[in-house]
Amino acid sequence: MNLRRGQPPVVEFWYEFASTYSYLSAMRIETLASTLGVTVAWRPFLLGPIFKKLGWNTSPFNLQPAKGRYMWHDMERQCERYGLPFSLPDPFPQPSLLAARIAHAGRSQSWIGAFSRAVFIAEFGQGLDISDEGLMADLLLEAGAPAKRALRDANSTETKIGLRAAVAEAEQHGVFGAPSFVIPGGELYWGDDRLEQALETAVRAC
Amino acid sequence: MNLRRGQPPVVEFWYEFASTYSYLSAMRIETLASTLGVTVAWRPFLLGPIFKKLGWNTSPFNLQPAKGRYMWHDMERQCERYGLPFSLPDPFPQPSLLAARIAHAGRSQSWIGAFSRAVFIAEFGQGLDISDEGLMADLLLEAGAPAKRALRDANSTETKIGLRAAVAEAEQHGVFGAPSFVIPGGELYWGDDRLEQALETAVRAC
Repeated sequence: MNLRRGQPPVVEFWYEFASTYSYLSAMRIETLASTLGVTVAWRPFLLGPIFKKLGWNTSPFNLQPAKGRYMWHDMERQCERYGLPFSLPDPFPQPSLLAARIAHAGRSQSWIGAFSRAVFIAEFGQGLDISDEGLMADLLLEAGAPAKRALRDANSTETKIGLRAAVAEAEQHGVFGAPSFVIPGGELYWGDDRLEQALETAVRAC
Repeated sequence: MNLRRGQPPVVEFWYEFASTYSYLSAMRIETLASTLGVTVAWRPFLLGPIFKKLGWNTSPFNLQPAKGRYMWHDMERQCERYGLPFSLPDPFPQPSLLAARIAHAGRSQSWIGAFSRAVFIAEFGQGLDISDEGLMADLLLEAGAPAKRALRDANSTETKIGLRAAVAEAEQHGVFGAPSFVIPGGELYWGDDRLEQALETAVRAC
């Protein structure tokens, strides 16, 4: 599908702004990908509709307290390992719809990586509320994006429909959590722990 | 607790015989640990009672079909990566109570590693039924264990009570899935993907 001989392999990075481990991958993926000669396709989506089908109305880390406690400790540990700031967002999960719409509308723009990282840092590094439109405007400008236009595009009917279709596309790839990576040929990798393996396999497959 | 200066660090390996990723860690842990100078404490336990408290009557891989499909594919991939045989057990999860009781009763014996690996290979490499007492006797003998005595010990009241207490001990460590690793000082690591990190941290902490 996105396998073209002689072209750098494209790895789809499916991420959810409310997802803790998506933060780790968002901060790491472009550095690792550029070292390996891989192109990243940023694919923001929403886990809410996928979780809802399982009867869950919140994050599994809230539904399973022991797993949640472990995850927060593991996140601290992994952030320290990767030299990333970390603070516990309140509430968790954060309402990520606005950020997801902005990123979906801007997913092919040059600022998508910088904007996505800025959102994750605001949320998990600074404990800010990512549903705040003013904050989003600031982060867009910081990322070199035309903030007003990006926000207008985010709120368009096309974007609302398109983001919903992206969730369905993720499900067709077999995505059930975030982050997930789809390599040329369609193979799926789940979790920040599989980031390196996904990229390396994408390179070997080309 | 198990942190003794000058002694090799002891890492507790909490595993469930029905758990796919426990298979990967069981096959890998002693080689990795001996390279790093770590002693492994084999701690078989049962996930069933922990899952039951969450209202689950089977593996989360059965309750979430998309996650289950991914897991089987990921297991194939990881087994290929590690050079391990793999076949889908039927039914999944396998009834692991007998194997867990044998391993709990024999957890301090010299044959515990060889026996545990033999059970996992029979289950995930050969598709055999690990609730079969005859198979268990064969695997015990293969591992150099006194099979008759091991089976008698496995069915003793002390073992039944002791295994139940082991599940409670796992929960007190914060264990919610398998494999899990507890390093000196009590820090918890979950999942085969954290095996190396757990062992390396245990070494650095000493």
